[in-house]
Formats: sequence, C-alpha cells, structure tokens
Amino acid sequence: MRAAMASAEVDDDVLGNDPTAARLETKMARIMGKEAALFVPSGTMANLICVLTHCAIRGSEVILGDYSHIHIYENGGISTIGGVHPRTVKNNEDGTMDIDLIEAAIRDPAFEICYPTTRLICLENSHAHSGGRCISAEYTDKVGELAKKHGLKLHIDGARIFNASVALGVPVHRLVQAADSVTACLSKGLGAPVGTVIAGSKSFIAQAKILRKTLGGGMRQVGVLCAPALVALEENISKLEDDHQKAKILAEGLNKIKGLKVDMASVETNIVYFDILEGSNITETHLCKILEAHGVLAMPEGPLTMRLVVHHQISESDVQYTLSCIQKAVSGFLGENGGK
Amino acid sequence: MRAAMASAEVDDDVLGNDPTAARLETKMARIMGKEAALFVPSGTMANLICVLTHCAIRGSEVILGDYSHIHIYENGGISTIGGVHPRTVKNNEDGTMDIDLIEAAIRDPAFEICYPTTRLICLENSHAHSGGRCISAEYTDKVGELAKKHGLKLHIDGARIFNASVALGVPVHRLVQAADSVTACLSKGLGAPVGTVIAGSKSFIAQAKILRKTLGGGMRQVGVLCAPALVALEENISKLEDDHQKAKILAEGLNKIKGLKVDMASVETNIVYFDILEGSNITETHLCKILEAHGVLAMPEGPLTMRLVVHHQISESDVQYTLSCIQKAVSGFLGENGGK
Amino acid sequence: MRAAMASAEVDDDVLGNDPTAARLETKMARIMGKEAALFVPSGTMANLICVLTHCAIRGSEVILGDYSHIHIYENGGISTIGGVHPRTVKNNEDGTMDIDLIEAAIRDPAFEICYPTTRLICLENSHAHSGGRCISAEYTDKVGELAKKHGLKLHIDGARIFNASVALGVPVHRLVQAADSVTACLSKGLGAPVGTVIAGSKSFIAQAKILRKTLGGGMRQVGVLCAPALVALEENISKLEDDHQKAKILAEGLNKIKGLKVDMASVETNIVYFDILEGSNITETHLCKILEAHGVLAMPEGPLTMRLVVHHQISESDVQYTLSCIQKAVSGFLGENGGK
Amino acid sequence: MRAAMASAEVDDDVLGNDPTAARLETKMARIMGKEAALFVPSGTMANLICVLTHCAIRGSEVILGDYSHIHIYENGGISTIGGVHPRTVKNNEDGTMDIDLIEAAIRDPAFEICYPTTRLICLENSHAHSGGRCISAEYTDKVGELAKKHGLKLHIDGARIFNASVALGVPVHRLVQAADSVTACLSKGLGAPVGTVIAGSKSFIAQAKILRKTLGGGMRQVGVLCAPALVALEENISKLEDDHQKAKILAEGLNKIKGLKVDMASVETNIVYFDILEGSNITETHLCKILEAHGVLAMPEGPLTMRLVVHHQISESDVQYTLSCIQKAVSGFLGENGGK
Repeated sequence: MRAAMASAEVDDDVLGNDPTAARLETKMARIMGKEAALFVPSGTMANLICVLTHCAIRGSEVILGDYSHIHIYENGGISTIGGVHPRTVKNNEDGTMDIDLIEAAIRDPAFEICYPTTRLICLENSHAHSGGRCISAEYTDKVGELAKKHGLKLHIDGARIFNASVALGVPVHRLVQAADSVTACLSKGLGAPVGTVIAGSKSFIAQAKILRKTLGGGMRQVGVLCAPALVALEENISKLEDDHQKAKILAEGLNKIKGLKVDMASVETNIVYFDILEGSNITETHLCKILEAHGVLAMPEGPLTMRLVVHHQISESDVQYTLSCIQKAVSGFLGENGGK
Repeated sequence: MRAAMASAEVDDDVLGNDPTAARLETKMARIMGKEAALFVPSGTMANLICVLTHCAIRGSEVILGDYSHIHIYENGGISTIGGVHPRTVKNNEDGTMDIDLIEAAIRDPAFEICYPTTRLICLENSHAHSGGRCISAEYTDKVGELAKKHGLKLHIDGARIFNASVALGVPVHRLVQAADSVTACLSKGLGAPVGTVIAGSKSFIAQAKILRKTLGGGMRQVGVLCAPALVALEENISKLEDDHQKAKILAEGLNKIKGLKVDMASVETNIVYFDILEGSNITETHLCKILEAHGVLAMPEGPLTMRLVVHHQISESDVQYTLSCIQKAVSGFLGENGGK
Repeated sequence: MRAAMASAEVDDDVLGNDPTAARLETKMARIMGKEAALFVPSGTMANLICVLTHCAIRGSEVILGDYSHIHIYENGGISTIGGVHPRTVKNNEDGTMDIDLIEAAIRDPAFEICYPTTRLICLENSHAHSGGRCISAEYTDKVGELAKKHGLKLHIDGARIFNASVALGVPVHRLVQAADSVTACLSKGLGAPVGTVIAGSKSFIAQAKILRKTLGGGMRQVGVLCAPALVALEENISKLEDDHQKAKILAEGLNKIKGLKVDMASVETNIVYFDILEGSNITETHLCKILEAHGVLAMPEGPLTMRLVVHHQISESDVQYTLSCIQKAVSGFLGENGGK
Repeated sequence: MRAAMASAEVDDDVLGNDPTAARLETKMARIMGKEAALFVPSGTMANLICVLTHCAIRGSEVILGDYSHIHIYENGGISTIGGVHPRTVKNNEDGTMDIDLIEAAIRDPAFEICYPTTRLICLENSHAHSGGRCISAEYTDKVGELAKKHGLKLHIDGARIFNASVALGVPVHRLVQAADSVTACLSKGLGAPVGTVIAGSKSFIAQAKILRKTLGGGMRQVGVLCAPALVALEENISKLEDDHQKAKILAEGLNKIKGLKVDMASVETNIVYFDILEGSNITETHLCKILEAHGVLAMPEGPLTMRLVVHHQISESDVQYTLSCIQKAVSGFLGENGGK
C-alpha cells in the first residue's frame, strides 16, 4: 500500500483531474452499482455531504435511527452545520427500525404550515452501535419502497458495508440497490490510510462535489491517498471473512470468562460488544486502562459495556493473548501498571 | 378587550418605548417570578427565541420530549433556522420524561470531539400532545436540579402554563421556579387576540430582544396588542377553572357514547382527546367534517384520535350540543351536508 | 383607525382564516399588481422571508446595495438565520447601483465548484440610507431584465414604496412591475400601528406563509392589526404628498441655518438628512439630546450627519418649531436641560 | 517526498494520536510563532474553521476584503455553512484595505438591536486576487492594534504566507505576529501533495479541532500526508526565491510582447497577471486553449486578463518556452490544435 502511495500518478483533484482518484471513483461506483462516486477525507464528511445534498432546501427533515452514527457520533453536524432537522426512530437490537414506525414518522405534507418537510431516510449497514449487525437486502428494499412511495430519498451510511457484504454473502451493489446514495469507508475494515467514498447518480455526485469543496474536502494531489485505497480494495476485502471468524472466536472466549457476557447473535462482523456483569469488581474504565497497559486497545461503550474490534492485522494469537489479558484482569491478576 | 385596544397608549416598541408593552411585560415578569419579560407575536417565535438564546454557540444540542410541541409542530425551526441539534427523550403519557433518560441523553463533554454540546433541557407545561396534562412543580424542580448539576439551562414551553397553574392549584411562578426561561401564551386559554410573553433574567431578555428583532418580531405600536392582553390577565384567568370543569363534562359525555373512548386521567385541563374504537364505521376525518358542517370545530390528531378544546366562550349548553352532534354522527344520523 | 381595530372581524390566521387579514391581503395584492399578498409583523421579517424564500437552496448568494437596509440594519439575518451569502454592490447617491456593476457581480455558473450561486437581486425603493430617494420604474425595469437574462429573481424592499409612488407620480404596481416580490410597510409613512405586507405570485406567497410560521410571524386574531391598516390605506396615502412638501420646507429652513447643510436634491420624500459643517461647535449627539429635551426626535446617522422624518401628524407649525429649536441649539442658545 | 510518505510513522489522528501529524503541527506552530497548530485537508477548510471558531456565537459579522479569497472563491461557506455575515471593505491594488475604512465598518455595539456583532477582521497575505502582492508586517500590526482596540480578533489567510515571507525578507512569525489565527498552505508554493495548517493559541486550536471533526476533516493515518509536508518545509522554502525570480523574468518577457501588458509592480511573488490589450485579435479563453494544447496551463481571470503561476518544478527554460508559445499565439502563429 505504501509503495502504491509512493508511485501514484497524481494531479490537482480540486479541478477533478487526478487520474488515480478517477480510477478509484470509477471502481467504487461499479462496486456499489451506482453511476458515479466521489472520494472524500472521512466518513463524517461523506454522511454530511449526502444528507445535505438530499436536503438542499431549507426546512428539510431526515428520518434516522436514534442510535445511528450520524445522530450520535457526528457532532450533530447535519443540524449545526446543515440546518437539517433530525427525526429519530427507535433502532432495534439488530440495527433496523420498524418499517411502520418509519412510515409514521414521515410528515404529512398537508400540514406543511407547521411541519418540516421529510426528504430523506437513512440506514446504516452494518450498524455500529448494535455491534456491527448487518441489514439485509430485503429489509433495505422495503425501506426503499417506502421512500419511493412518499417521494423521499434513501441514504445508506455504509461505513462498514464491505463487512456486511461479506457476512451476509451478498454483493455490495445488491445490498445498496434501493439507495439513492451510499458511503463506504476505506480506512476501517479495509485498512487504507484515509478516506471514504460516496456513490450515487451522476447529478447527485456533481452536487456532492460542490459541497465537498464548500466544506473544504477538496484536496489537491489526492492520488497519494487513492492509490493505497485501490490496493486495499484488491487485497483486503478477502481478509474480512477471517476478521469475522476471529471476532467469533474472541466472542466465544469472552463468553467463557466468569463475570462477562456476550450476546453471540450480535457478533455478525468484526465488532464484539461484551458486558461486565453487575457484581463484578471491575469497571469498563478500569479494564480499558489495564488492557491498554498491556497493548490491547478497547473502548468503553457505556456503563459496564465494552467494544473490541478485529482487523486483518490482528492474528489469531493476538485474539488468544487478548482473551488471556482480559481473563487475568477480570480475576484481579493484572493491574494498570503492567503488573498486577 | 377591544375597548382597551382602542384606547391603548402606544409608542415605537422596536426602540423599546411602548408604555403599554412595558406594563404588560412588567406584570408578566412578576406573575412568572422572573426579572424581566418580552412580548413576541407568537408561541413559535417565543420558543425559537428561547432555544436559540440559550444555544447561542454553534454546536449546541437541546434535550426535549419526542412529542413536544417544539419538536413536532414548530417546523423544526430550531434546526432549520437556528442550527440547534435536537436530542429527543420519550414523552410519558403524562407529558413528563423519565429523569434518568434525560440524564442519559446529556452528552459527556469528554467526547466533545464527536458529540455536540448539550446546553438546554426543555419541558412543556401543560403538555399539549398528551392532552393538556400538567407537570408538577416537584418534577420540574428535579429536572432543574439535573440541569444545574450538568451546567445546563432549563426552558419551559408554558403555552398553557395558566391552565396548568389553575388545574394544579399552584401559582405560575412556583411551577416555573426552576426554569431559566419560560413562555406563556396570551391568545390560547386567556383569549387575547395575539401574542406570547417570554420571561427570564434581565440579561437573557436583553439577548432575546435582539433575536426578536433579527427574526422580525419587533413591532412598532405594539401596545394595541398588549392592552387587550392586560385585560385578559385581569379577567380570564379566573375563567379557566370553569373551562376545565366543562372539559370534564364533555369527556364524561363522550365516554358514554358507544364506539368512543376517553382516558379520563388525561383530562386535566381544557383539552379532551378521544379515540374512535376500531370497528366503528366512522373515521376521524369524516367526523371532523360532519362536526364542522354543524358548527363544531374539532381536530384529528392521528388515526382514530380526535381533539376538542374548551375555552371561556364555550358554554355548558355548547358542550351539550357538541355531545349531541357527535352522538348522532357516530350513530350515522348526521351527514357532512348539514343533514343526515 | 382605533375604531376599526375595536370592531374588526377576526379568526385564527395561523390557519389562514382571518377575514380582515384576507381583505387587507387582497387589497394590497391589487395595489402592488401581484397575484397574492401576506401580512407579517415587521419589515425586517418581510425582507427576511422574501430573501430566504427566493434563496431556499443552500449555497445561495444575493446581490444587494452596500448601504441597503437589509445589509446594514437587519442584524445580518439573511446570513445568520438564513445562511444566504450577501454580495454587495456600491449604492450610488441616489440609491441605485450601476447596472454593469450588478452584472459583474453575478457569479458565472461555470465556476460553481468554488462560487456560491447567485439567485436574487434586491433593490430598495425609496432608499432609506440615501435620504429616501426614489428609484424610477425605468431603472427597475432594466434591473428586472438583467435578472431575467441570468435566471435570477428580483426583490424590492418597498418599506417606503408609497412615498416613492407619490413622489414620482407613478402607481405602486408600475414601480414594482419587474419584481418577483415586494414588501410595503404599513406603519411608517402610512401610520398603521403594526405590520408589513409581502406581495408576489401565489406559489411564492404559499412558500412565504410557511416561512412566516417557522419564524414565528403567524399570529392568531391578526385582524385587529389589519383593520387599522385598511383604514391607513384609505386615508393616509393622500397625505404623503403633504409630508413631502413639509420635508422640503424643513430642508430649505435647515439650509439657511449657519453651520448646517442639506443636499436639496436628496429630499425627494419625507426624509431630510443634514450635515453639521466642520468647525461648528455642536456634535450630532449633543444636538439630538437638546432636541429631545424640547420634544423633537431626531436620529444621528454618522459623524456630523442627522436625520429628520416628517409624517402626517407633524404639522407645518411643528416644522417651524423644529427649525427654531435647531437654530437656537446650533447658536448655543438651547441646552440639554430644556434651557440654555 | 514520496519516500517520506511511504515510510511515515502513523496512527489514528481522529483521536489525535498520529506522531507524524504531531511533528508537523509542532514545527508549523514554531514557524508561525503560535502556541499550537492543526493539519487540515485544504485551505478552504482552514479558513472556514478559523472564521467559524472566532465567530462561534450566532449573529457574528466578519470584515474582509471585497476581493479576498474567502469572500470570492470559497463558495460563500462562512455564510452558507457557518451563518456568519460578511461585511466587505474595498481591497486596494496592493491587497490591503484602508485602515479607516476597516474602522468605519466595525459595528457600533450601541446599536446591537439592529446590527450584527463584528467579531473578526481577515487579511490575506500574499493577496491572490491582486496578483500575489505581499502585506507588510507594519500594516498587519496596525490592523492588529485596531482589532484589539475594538475587542475583535484578527485572522490571516496565509495560503501563500511563505511566498510573502521570502519576498519581503521577513520571517513568517513576524508577519503574522498580530494575528490570533493564521493558515498556511503546504500544497501551493511548497509543493506537498495535500494540506493546510492552522496556527493559533492552544484553546483556539482545541476548538478548531472539534470543528474539523464536524466538517469531516478529521482523517485517520494522516501521517502519510504530513510526512511529505515535513519534507517540503525542509527543502522547498529555499526554492521560493528562485520562483519569484523566474516570475519576474516571465513578467518582463510578457511585457515585451506586443499587445500584452504586465503591471511590473504587481509581480512580487510567483504569480504573474497580464492583460491582453483591447484591439488585440485574441481572447483570454482562446489563448488559454492554445497554451493548453502546447502543454502550458494558464487561467483566465476576467475579460482580457490571465494568470500564470511559477513553481519550483518550472525551470528557466520552461519560462522561455512559455514566452515563446504566448508570443506565437498572440501573433496568430499557433492554433488550438497544436499547430497554427
């Protein structure tokens, strides 16, 4: 990947001339089954651009999950920067929202005098906050039909869409077939250094490109970032299945540790959430610090809940080492200073 | 009230010189127990000004009920005009939100890199969407303490705060004691032609005044609107108790009509929600039209749910007439054209 | 006017049902020569609604005079509330802008990647900051043609359009013929207590109505404000000519006072600007205070510049009294405390 | 530079952990003489973040040049995304604004009821639209004093600040000493592939970092972009003087071509503007196309005006080749298809 970076053919992409960016965008458009694609610096910008492009008219409302990444982890940018009003629908444990709840949240245009105008529905696949669970093509299609019926657009936050595709055994373009726009992260599961790609119709991407410039996401010789992303697409998608397998091994191991609990149904991709049972004499914050002192990076996700993520540079023996560290920490045999 | 309007002493209130406006504002500040008050043209503007004044810094989030008037019925203006990100908490049947759910929704400043900053909690008293149910002073105090603990402000949408005060037998200033700002409508229960008043600290009202001008709510000889409002304060508060009594009679009457159902616990003030039971051969839309043809204005509030509001110009015999119309309509003896 | 207010027929205008508002709006639409009209609480809201309705899409730019009321005196609301980017063109002494400068300021859509999109041109007639000077129908037509040629809209801030109409001897509808939207104040020259009317196409007014609600300008029994406005339209337009005549007398009188100077060409309507010549031993702030102490309200408009406005309740003898006060004040024979 | 990229030490910079980014930011903070610095993907984002961070409170106004890059070439993002109201002051030919005009544009807080609040003044050094002319430290200091006197902040758009530093023979930190924030582009004169750095106080940069995340400019293994930027800082600053020398040679050559004209006083750095004299039988668009067909990239900057930019990969013989192409094109001996 680094070699690709060092030899990338580049040009000024603010003017849309970088040949490596063009190659990546063409390839990603094909993978996503859309007319066109656009490279942007981050997933946050990708979602922001997509929501704002669909909601270009003042007074727009977007329907999205109450624990969607856009609503919880992206600084509220769609409102604070974009002036879009969010209407949330409860996220189920599997990351979906009940279709009838979505429909009930759509504003009746007859009351436009006091209602904002619903313009967009957002899904997230796989759904980060539910532990990386995957949204099926069938469910997505139904939401797409609902959107069409009401003249709305459908956006999919596909930060981890390649993980969903591998876990479900369904090609990406099929998973996002019903969507008017989709984002896919190149730097999470795929391991490229930087970047996310937006895909959609040609006219959508033309509008998105203007907004990318407004937000400051237009970069010059961006080919140096697109080249490793092309390598990642070639080499790393096939490794995702292994990541999911290792995540399952990790989850099963955690489940065997006294005082911890994993909902195995939630481990569909490379993310493992586990709970520290009440009565245990360790907290999530304490456990994080102990693990960090032993080279294992974990993230607290709430009281007594923790998140671990597996990627292709984590080997099976890393998984075993992690399990052993956690086992010892929970049992009180490992301290924050590297020893007990 | 009209006479008061015709003889009001006035001056240019954009410059803050109208003496009648000043009298109304002083009086309302005292009633609300706050330092200062400001007359604005509508409840929507009042809430918009309060939320935006508390959330003056870009990147703010407000916590409010998922069926609060601000979130549902005010065009999403706090986001689409003000760039404030709303975070909703489930409204209980009585219009409150669970205190622990509110606390859980407050953003941890440690994660400000991806979280908006919580700056405000909003309550609504009485709560319109729950049928005009009243929020107690004790509950409000608890939310106030929570807000203080986290350095947040508390706003009360008191469009119907006089109804709440009368129904609970608690003075307005006590009900809103914990609030940093409160609005009170003069044209709903109180019957003044136009206007809402905001109350808060002097510095808050000074900021609110600037925003009122920005939004275009600064009016010149506004005394002609404030004079009848002063009359309404004198004469109509005492009539609210009667309104609530008539609403109870209406509710009991509806409950006796076959095919209709009223949750009597929800009838605390002057609003009556009733459900049309499934299997009935009338819809809310149809019933509305029939009633309108017979001079009774009702509002559909969702599938098979309707809303009726009582005010001081509705007499007890009007209530009986309304019941009789609804009885006949539900039985199929009344049509949309005035006859069967 | 007060009698009209007291006997006005009213209803809930948030729902668009107030019959007196409807009469006023119909009458104003006819006067302005547009399909429809809308009553709003203030001129600031009127301009804000018009600019935001024409610039409903994110990324819009408006071209307007660098000393237009919208740019200087309305809190920058079109940007701070509406997110519209202003591009200013130099206002000439007569309130116009050079047509070729306007054209040069229109953004080339070919560079939309780094340019906002020009969507609107604003004129102001009469132009407040230039002393109430009037814009001719011919000039307005030319700007209208330019707008059409580039696919832009034309808005006229007609806060004082009735003064312009009377001074030019041209009917209002002719003056604003080329405009897509126009505002007219009812409470300045015309003397109604509160309110401004927007006029435009039916679809424009339908959009404006939604935005009026969002901003909080929808009022309930607004007929109490529209009734006196109807009286003002009947009775006060004919008095404007007198106002202009009295303004000329005032201006000529001021010009004779040693140490003061009026550009007589600028006195076209009811506004008189005068300069205090350098070397004089009085400042604009001091003079204002002295006059206020003697019952004459004037406004400083910059270093050594002051503004006086005549309306129909200012008699010719009031004009003479004002001149005498100013004469004495400038000569040092009148102090801030009522005496020398 | 490519080698540096390939061997860069990296980590997740969204969490602020990338060691190469940290090294670059520390180095740039020192060069700019500020406490802290932040890497962002583009100059547009850098300016947007700085203006919005200084103008974090709703209702802010910024004073900037009427031909500043922020006002003309950055999509109006400060308004359309940030809700900041721009107040422009005429840019002189040398890129400065008259200090007394700046002071006159500052809003008097006494009229905050109808004025936005001035919070920021922006300068641009070197000034792109004036042909890359440099702003002296003395002038900047004076604007800084003015800002302090009125409680305002000063931002310098230093996209080409290294060019200004070299041309003036004054270190960067001295040039921006009076500024509260400054941006410096790494990919223009310095030739790094991507990126701009913001510098300011620690608390300013902490706020800027949050906004970078909101806008989507937080990138993961950003070290791959920071490594070549570090190389550029080491190797390319010294080459800027040569670029300026070559620009002067180019300008002198152009001035000798019949029908073209260069204002030699404007050629202070690496940008050369030239005019095609009226009566010439070539247009700027036509000339651009001819040059492009012969491998020379130029940019039209308005009717009969063109821009050429020199960088360190343009040799003296490239300059001579360019002059010869333009000479032939202007004389009619070169066509758009590569031949005459």
